[in-house]
Order: sequence, then structure tokens, then C-alpha cells
Amino acid sequence: MFEIAELGHTVSKTDYNEQAPVLRTQLLTVQQQLKSCDFPVIILISGVDGGGKGEVINLLNEWMDPRYIRTFAFAAPSDEEKERPKFWRFWRTLPPKGLIGINVGSWYSDPLSRRVYGTIDDNALQIELMQIRQLEKLLIDDGTLIIKCWLHLKKDEQKKRLKALEKDPETSWQVTERDKKHLKMYDDFLTVAERVLTDTSTGDAPWLIVDGSDIHYSSLTVGKHIFNRIQKQIAKRTAEQASKVRIELPHVLQEGQQNVLDSLNLSLVLDKKTYNQELAFYQGKLNKLARLAHEQQRSTILVFEGWDAAGKGGAIRRLTHAVDARAYQVIPIAAPTDEEKQHHYLWRFWRHIPRAGFLTIYDRSWYGRVLVERVEGYASEQEWQRSYSEIVNFEESLTAHGILVLKFWLHIDKDEQLARFKAREQIPYKQYKITEEDYRNREKWDDYQLAVNEMVTRTSTQNTPWILVEGNDKKYARIKIIKLFCERLEKALNV
Amino acid sequence: MFEIAELGHTVSKTDYNEQAPVLRTQLLTVQQQLKSCDFPVIILISGVDGGGKGEVINLLNEWMDPRYIRTFAFAAPSDEEKERPKFWRFWRTLPPKGLIGINVGSWYSDPLSRRVYGTIDDNALQIELMQIRQLEKLLIDDGTLIIKCWLHLKKDEQKKRLKALEKDPETSWQVTERDKKHLKMYDDFLTVAERVLTDTSTGDAPWLIVDGSDIHYSSLTVGKHIFNRIQKQIAKRTAEQASKVRIELPHVLQEGQQNVLDSLNLSLVLDKKTYNQELAFYQGKLNKLARLAHEQQRSTILVFEGWDAAGKGGAIRRLTHAVDARAYQVIPIAAPTDEEKQHHYLWRFWRHIPRAGFLTIYDRSWYGRVLVERVEGYASEQEWQRSYSEIVNFEESLTAHGILVLKFWLHIDKDEQLARFKAREQIPYKQYKITEEDYRNREKWDDYQLAVNEMVTRTSTQNTPWILVEGNDKKYARIKIIKLFCERLEKALNV
Repeated sequence: MFEIAELGHTVSKTDYNEQAPVLRTQLLTVQQQLKSCDFPVIILISGVDGGGKGEVINLLNEWMDPRYIRTFAFAAPSDEEKERPKFWRFWRTLPPKGLIGINVGSWYSDPLSRRVYGTIDDNALQIELMQIRQLEKLLIDDGTLIIKCWLHLKKDEQKKRLKALEKDPETSWQVTERDKKHLKMYDDFLTVAERVLTDTSTGDAPWLIVDGSDIHYSSLTVGKHIFNRIQKQIAKRTAEQASKVRIELPHVLQEGQQNVLDSLNLSLVLDKKTYNQELAFYQGKLNKLARLAHEQQRSTILVFEGWDAAGKGGAIRRLTHAVDARAYQVIPIAAPTDEEKQHHYLWRFWRHIPRAGFLTIYDRSWYGRVLVERVEGYASEQEWQRSYSEIVNFEESLTAHGILVLKFWLHIDKDEQLARFKAREQIPYKQYKITEEDYRNREKWDDYQLAVNEMVTRTSTQNTPWILVEGNDKKYARIKIIKLFCERLEKALNV
Repeated sequence: MFEIAELGHTVSKTDYNEQAPVLRTQLLTVQQQLKSCDFPVIILISGVDGGGKGEVINLLNEWMDPRYIRTFAFAAPSDEEKERPKFWRFWRTLPPKGLIGINVGSWYSDPLSRRVYGTIDDNALQIELMQIRQLEKLLIDDGTLIIKCWLHLKKDEQKKRLKALEKDPETSWQVTERDKKHLKMYDDFLTVAERVLTDTSTGDAPWLIVDGSDIHYSSLTVGKHIFNRIQKQIAKRTAEQASKVRIELPHVLQEGQQNVLDSLNLSLVLDKKTYNQELAFYQGKLNKLARLAHEQQRSTILVFEGWDAAGKGGAIRRLTHAVDARAYQVIPIAAPTDEEKQHHYLWRFWRHIPRAGFLTIYDRSWYGRVLVERVEGYASEQEWQRSYSEIVNFEESLTAHGILVLKFWLHIDKDEQLARFKAREQIPYKQYKITEEDYRNREKWDDYQLAVNEMVTRTSTQNTPWILVEGNDKKYARIKIIKLFCERLEKALNV
């Protein structure tokens, strides 16, 4: 696959001086247009050592307006990054809509070098590449343009370049022992790189393989490629918005199918005495387990979803009562801020992923995408349909990092909800909780029910199954939740 | 000062059970009101070991709605925090307007313990306390309510409590060698604490000293104090908004005073040949210096201010051309995002303080407060007047951390500006730069000139003087800037 990039392409100085200013104007123009577009651009610059990655990136920053570019070099992760799932550091640096992010050392670097060094085998590499494809697909589906460039260099070229650098006292510092070691591993590196590039060259995000032997040639080639792709993407997005194609997608649930919520026994109750006893018992237990989890650096994420007035807040407070306030955060999810709106909808949840040993409780969550956003039409059908698998992958990356993830759906019936609305209206500091919107949402009960059923069906996985909680009796619901949390935590901590 | 907190205050269980629910309703009500107010609340919980900090914080989180509280325990800083000025970790966790932040281990912990351990002397402590007062004043002036609580415990009480914890196998793990060591240092600790509390009990942010010997007493006392202070602050802010008191503040500049901009010789020019030679020379030099700075982990912050079309962008590009794109970020300052609006105006600049060894270039900056916000009336006179000293303190904290800070004002005259506007309108990819607003701003030239003069007068300090750049000739200006940057960097790096 690298043959064509080994032909020794060059561009004469005259040609370069003629073409570069034209390209610069093109890039500036397209960058200017991009600023008012509703998608970001991510440029990945990878390749062989000595292939000129640094030079190309510097030229791109010189040609374009650096104020609207974010260049990130991903070297060793910081401790704050190490304590989160591996993609967290990329999520936190994703460019907002209208801007360009240039990544040197991207999500490809780590799997590639670990395979070359033999830390992982072929199967593990395959899984890593699959996760990368999922990440890229998720971004692309959201409109992100991903441009991937690979700067290639023949082995003898690489050798020659290192020698030249080493000879010149001005540049000899650039050549490290690691570089020399890498030169010896050139063939292994190329074998792995070939697999990586083949497996991740998708229709939407193909790899551009560039001959890196002449910086004039490679920078012009990369620059033109970037210009073309951004220009095309702008045209594509504009056309899409003009036509607003509505694609009918197959539903997983058929009418008349059983309703998982109906199967819950809402008459389950707990008397006050048992409730008080069990609550005290499980709060004591949770307190110890949470302390242990903090010591062992095990993180937990709890997700609370449920009908309005289903008792999420009360259940959360019974849990947090048992946990040291310094070790948890409750994140209430309301309308996104404008910074959040400039990113993929999962970005706002990635922001709050806890550090090692901490607990984050989401009061409503990413499931808003397939609940309120679906029912109210804030997300298009394509958007919420594809989010099921995005969510499953997201949660997998959390559990793969060793985070315990528990998802609770608090269920009550329609009568109980009405009774609670009325009761809340009588308590001064709870009145604010009841708005006209709550009554409006009630009218869409059936739509929400369908959405909940589909959500449970499509996002209950082995590691993160939905826990449906019979919530008509608050006491019963609270004990069920805290007890389950204790059990899962015990299992996770091996106690 | 601790006498009153050593009297052994207690609250009977009956009284507690009677008062706690009342307090809870009060706190929930006031917390609810706070959500729509335009100020945040910061609660600092400090005190003697064993004084019950953890218990009080847990109770506060239980009484109030934890979804609108952010509790932060500041233990050892992460590496990302260590690489920034010491207050950076507090800035990044400041609560937005309407929310409550509870800090355990605040900006007081580090100076206090370092003085007790003898790492710093009394003078150094005084300076640390002065910086803390400045930080608190800045937040308070912006509307933030700061509530500071000190949980006290007599020496023999502390001893007794540690003994009791140690005896119980359930709690013995809580007692560390450090605790025992601290007990021996009790008297020293109290002497330093007394000084710290005395020096930082200001009219707006007094310390509440609470007897910590009985958790019922201390938690009720802290809770009531919090309720009262939030309630009063809401009343105060409401009254202020109703009356909109306009206070006339003394201007530093008198009419007829010399204009610093007039003293610049705008006829300075550089011919093309000299320009090209010098540019190549200084770019080469800067390249080496920037590499060295990166290696030595020295950070730099450059601030560019100037008239519209003064050539900020072009000057920035001549610098970045010489620096590896992976080592710098250009931050263009436009309208704040809504998250930024929820914080003190300096918050959005603290966000971008570079990690060790990196360069951040602000294209417009915090000086917008005393330029555009002043002239256009976006900030009240009190707001921009007090920001001069806030800015000076902010820059001092940067230079104290070892960051090189350079501030450039690019000056052109009115005729030159008009000529450049006209020229820009002819170049396709520059047209966007010229809007009606630019012409409107031109009409306020004199107002801006007054603001620039006052800014230069009040914020040019020994460490961060304003560098005024004669900008009518772009070539001259660019060379002056890059040359100065090289010189300052050389000096900072001792080469």
C-alpha cells in the first residue's frame, strides 16, 4: 500500500512558490466559510519517524489562520487523563463546530506502538481498531469531517535523514536513541501500520498516504487534500440542509409487543419500620463499601432516569447520605450550554467522568437523546436511532476502564404521578419542581412509554443492564436501589 | 480568639430533632431562590483535625439539594495543576452563578500548613495572606458570597477524639501517623491559625469560629450561618439592582494630560530588504529559544491589543511561524460563551493558562474590560475601575509562577486605519474582517484613546510593562515585536 508513496515525488522550488500562495488563499477562504458551518474538522497527522509531521503541521498553521486552529500533540497522558477511559483525552480536546483541530499523535499512536512493541497481540489490535472506527463513525455521523494523513518514508530515506540530522551540530539533538531503535524496527512498524491503515480507511474517513521525502511535495499535497475535503463537506452539508432528506428507519418494537414497564408489580410496598431498619443497614454498608472503593481507586457512575416525580431526587439523597460528600458529584442534566451545543451530544457527559475513586451521579443523562429529544423532536430520527449503539459503545468504554456503571429507571403509573404533582404543589420549597411542562409531558405518556421500551430493549447489555425500579412506593424503591448498589459494589470490589 | 469556641457548646437530641427540619426547609428554600440569582456562593470549611469538617459537609449536602452543590476536597494537586499558578485549581472549580461550591481544603490549607512546618517564615505567610485577600476581594466585588467556617476543638478534646477513634476497630483506620504528629503540633498550629484567621476576617468575608466538640451544635450553627448569609446577600443584591447606585469614581487621568500614544513616532519604517533579513534572523533565533523554553518547561503568555486593523494577526503569524505548532495556542477573544458569563470575567482567561513549557497567545485579552467594555458601557464604571488592580494581581500571579508575560499595544493612526479598512475590502478572504462595527468603533476613537492611556498608566508594572509598538509600518512593527520577544526570552532563560 505504500508503493506509490515511495516513488520520490518532488516539487521544484519554482512550482512550490507558484502553488503555495494560491493554496494559502484557498485554505483561508474555506476556513473562513467553515467558521459559520455547523461542523468541526479534525485533521490527524501520522506517519513514519522523519516523515516530516512537524514541518507539515507548522506549514498548515502558517497557511491558515492559527486563531481558529487547535493543535494538540498527544504525548504521555497526564495523571488526570490516566484516571479516565482512554478516549477521554481526545474528547476533552475535540474542536467545537466551525473550528479545526490538528492532532499529532492521535488515537492511532498508542495501539500502533503497542502492537509493534508486542505489548498486545493481533486480536487485541483488532479490537482497538474497531473502537477507533466506532469513535470516528460517531463523530462523522454528527457531521465532523475527519481528515487522516499518513506521511510515509522509505527505510533508506529514513536512515539518510537521521544521519543528516545527526551530522549537523544544529540538529543532532533531535536524534534520540529511541529514533535509532525505531529505525531497526522499521519493517515491523510498517507491517503493523499497513494493517492499521487498511482497517481504518473507511469511505467517510480514508487515509491519505503521502510521500514524505520532499517537504514541498508533502505539504502541498496535504494542504490541497484538506482544502478539497473541507470544500466538499461544506457543499454536502449545505445540500443536505436544503433537501432535509427524511429517511424512514426500521423500528425494533412492533405494535402490540409486550411493554416491559407493564410487567412491573407496582403494588410492592415496604412498611415504615422495615424501611427504616433496612435503610439504616444499607446506608451503613454503603458507607463502608464507598470508602473501600475510594481507597481502591474504583470509580462508579450512576444513571437515574424515570418519569417526572418518580422519586429520582429522593433516591439519590438516600444514597449520597451514606457517601462522603468529598467523594461524589451529582450532575443534574438540563438544557445544554452553548459550549455543549457546539459538540457531539455525548461531549457534555464525557466532561464529568470521575477521576479514579470517585462517584458521579447523573440525574438524567445521555438517555435524554432517546427519550425527551426523541419524543419532542429535538433530535431527528436518524440522530436518535443511531445513538443507541453510540451509547452502548460509550458505556462499554467506561466499564472497560473498570468503572462500575449502574442505570436505574424509576417507574410509577399515571395516577401516582398526578397525586405527586398535586402534593408537591402544597410544599413551598417543592413548588418550583412542578411546571406547566410537567403537565404537558404527561399528555405524551404513551410516546414516552414506547421510547422507554425501546431504550431498555436496545441498551440493556451484559455489563450495564437497565435496573427497572417499581416506584409507586417510595420506600420500596429506595431500598431496592441502595441494596442493589451495595450488591454490585461488593461484587466489583471482591468483598 | 478561640475562647468562645472552647466552652463546650452542645445541643440536646430533642432540640436538634426540632431545629434540623426547620433549618432544612430554610436552606432548601434559599437554595431554590439562589438558582435564579446572579451570584455564586463559596463555602470554605476549615479547622482543627477532628473538628468534624467531614461530618458538617455531609450534613450540608444532606440538608440541601446536592444537585446544585459542588463539593471539592483539595488534596495534593495533580500534575496539570502543579504546572500552573497556585490559584489555578481554585479558579477551575469556581461555582457558576446560582450554585454553591463547598471547598474542603481551600486556598488557606497550603500556607497554613507550610508555616506550621516552618517551610515559610512570617513574612512569606503575610504575602500569601495578602494574595488570598486579593482573591477573595475580587470574587466578592463580582458578587460572590464567601462564607468561611472554622471548626475548632480544644487540645484535650482533640486527643480524646483521636483516642476514641483509635480504640474502635471500626474507625481506627481513620487515625494516621500524620494525625498523631499533628496533635503534638497543636499549639504551633493554633498560633498560626489565629494569625491567619485574624488577618483574613474581613467585613465582607468574616470567619465564623465554631465549637466543634458536638456535631449537633456545630452543624446547626454552620447551617444557620449559611442560611442567614445567603438570605442577606439575596436581599442586598435585589436592593442594589433596584436602586442601581451610580458611584462616581476619581479618574487617574486629567484632561489635557499628555497622551502616551502621541509620543510614538509613527513615521518609523523598515525597507523590504532589511525587513526580510531581520525577520529571517529573528525567526531563526526565536525557533531556538522557543525550543529551549519548551525543554526548560518555561511558559510564556503574549497579549496582543491594538486598534482594529493595527496588524495583530500578521504580527502573531510572524511569531508562530518560528515556533513548533505543537507548543503554542492562539486564543482569539470574542464575546464570552454562556458558561463564561456565569463566572468572574477573568475566569475565561484562567482557562487557557498554558501547561509548563507552552506558549499561549491572546489575540485581545482581559484588557477588553478596560477598553471595549468600558467604552461601550458593557461594564459599569465600578467594574472596570476595580479591574485595573485585579488585572495587575492576576499578572503578578502569572509571573510569580515563572511565566514570562509580554503585552503589546499595536498603535496606528486614524488615517492609516481607514486606508487598511479600504484595502481589506478588496481581498476576498479578508473582507469578513471588516464589518460595520469597525466603522462604528472608529467614531469612538477619542474615547478609546483615553481608555488606552489609562490602561497603560495603571497596568504597566515592573514585571509586565506595556510595550507600545509603532504600527503604521507593518514591517517595522513586526520586527520590533519579534526582536523584543527574543530579548525577553533570552533574559528569562539566562542564555
